[in-house]
Amino acid sequence: MSFKLTILGCNSAVPTVERHPTAQLLNANERFFLIDCGEGTQVRLKEFQLNFQRINHIFISHLHGDHYFGLIGLISSMHLLGRNKDLHIYAHQELKSIIDLQLSAANTELNYPLFFHPISETNEQVLYEDEKISISNIILNHTIKCSGFIFKEKKSPRKIINVRIEEYNIPFDKYNGIKKGADWISDTGEIIKNNEITVENTPVHSYAFCTDTAYNEALIDKIRGFDLLYHEATFKKDLADRAKETGHSTTYEAATMAKKSAVKNLLIGHFSQRYKILDELLIEAKDTFRNTLLAESGLELDFNKLPS
Amino acid sequence: MSFKLTILGCNSAVPTVERHPTAQLLNANERFFLIDCGEGTQVRLKEFQLNFQRINHIFISHLHGDHYFGLIGLISSMHLLGRNKDLHIYAHQELKSIIDLQLSAANTELNYPLFFHPISETNEQVLYEDEKISISNIILNHTIKCSGFIFKEKKSPRKIINVRIEEYNIPFDKYNGIKKGADWISDTGEIIKNNEITVENTPVHSYAFCTDTAYNEALIDKIRGFDLLYHEATFKKDLADRAKETGHSTTYEAATMAKKSAVKNLLIGHFSQRYKILDELLIEAKDTFRNTLLAESGLELDFNKLPS
Repeated sequence: MSFKLTILGCNSAVPTVERHPTAQLLNANERFFLIDCGEGTQVRLKEFQLNFQRINHIFISHLHGDHYFGLIGLISSMHLLGRNKDLHIYAHQELKSIIDLQLSAANTELNYPLFFHPISETNEQVLYEDEKISISNIILNHTIKCSGFIFKEKKSPRKIINVRIEEYNIPFDKYNGIKKGADWISDTGEIIKNNEITVENTPVHSYAFCTDTAYNEALIDKIRGFDLLYHEATFKKDLADRAKETGHSTTYEAATMAKKSAVKNLLIGHFSQRYKILDELLIEAKDTFRNTLLAESGLELDFNKLPS
Repeated sequence: MSFKLTILGCNSAVPTVERHPTAQLLNANERFFLIDCGEGTQVRLKEFQLNFQRINHIFISHLHGDHYFGLIGLISSMHLLGRNKDLHIYAHQELKSIIDLQLSAANTELNYPLFFHPISETNEQVLYEDEKISISNIILNHTIKCSGFIFKEKKSPRKIINVRIEEYNIPFDKYNGIKKGADWISDTGEIIKNNEITVENTPVHSYAFCTDTAYNEALIDKIRGFDLLYHEATFKKDLADRAKETGHSTTYEAATMAKKSAVKNLLIGHFSQRYKILDELLIEAKDTFRNTLLAESGLELDFNKLPS
């Protein structure tokens, strides 16, 4: 199915005119998931012509401002522009009080139902699930409690080969069983193996969002083999001490994580504002993990076109 | 003295890519006062190359998000960029809890002292005063408690005419008294009237910030004769009912307020996002009050060059 990620912002801490704080939009088969929501995210969504009323689920990694200061504005604009369908927010518990207090100060009662789902500080669990995708939190290692998110598309049933249906005269009521892997017994009693009458469906996609975090080998098994890992690379490798001290990672650490977890592609972001030329960070990461990409506002990644 | 206003944003409610929510910076003789702080204000300040660390006093009119959602981000960036000098915030009491809760959720202890000054809901009083300027709140008429602000420069002492000092041999220790209006008694006992040895200093400036508010004649005496009135004109005059219902004003009402209070200039702003071409609002206002200007992001008004 279609699976596209748009980067809305990928700067750390302090926003600048050109580089915006963290926010990403994942479009999984026309289901829209917003991941983090730094200041100005609603304007970025408009700039990239992404209709924010289509977002029904918002995931907030942690309560440092560069990851959520744009949320209350987005919630308010959704309200002012006439939203009436549900909105679900997944975040650490304190965010609920912050939202409630701001709505109360404005004497605003939202036109739409807002559901708040607290993320556990200690458990990793499924936060959202439907027939196509499941989304879980993973515990990161930052200066305050912080959650990564993993998005895993579910395996689709196999596809029946049309000419085989005619050849073996397979009736409609058997399709579901065959799609799930059943063999077929022909009119003559011959057993036709499932893989002769079906093919694999489109490949499933997987995405891991890991920011903010110090280098943390506990992640490796949780993201192994993923199509794409977004991993913060706040600093160049010469600032490894500073990274450790502030609960962040270097380019080298992000690339090492990608290598050890054997993900197919790495996207680095959350750059310190001290770096004016980001290519230098990309070069450092590529040195350890070749399939590295650099996040920038407006970048759209189609998972069906990523190197595999 | 120098007295300059920069418009950082002047849209109502929902921000767009081109039009930003309310924020203004008043530079009164190199003292910088920020008035309202909608989402993205810190980025606007950078865009217009205004150093936000020079701002020591921030005035928030009311707690609708388009007037303050950018404040917590600005406070955080000031902290992250090493501020250590005092910051004073003047706003309704609830804002303090909102700021405190967000700092606490981020486990942030600011590097600089932040002083919160609650604005009274019922009393109009001086909020800030120094030897050059006084700043007071005025009560507006909106859907939630809302405060306008008036900025009045203090009258400077008169200037002594240099040639008179020589002519009458006036000693230095008498300068202050003469600047304040004292006459001079010459060596021969002659009384020299103050206005023969001094001239008026530069004119004093006055600015009134009035948004959000329904048309409210109680303001007239408080802003009479001001150099500049910023008055919201959320709607065109055909939507007078909608304006009343939502605690806002029309172009016609803003212009009528300017006319009745005999201010020298009117600046209209806080435009509804329904208007794509703002010139139509300007034309409507000018029809009633000729000296009307249209607010737009980046507009800088030098009070020494305004029509008087």
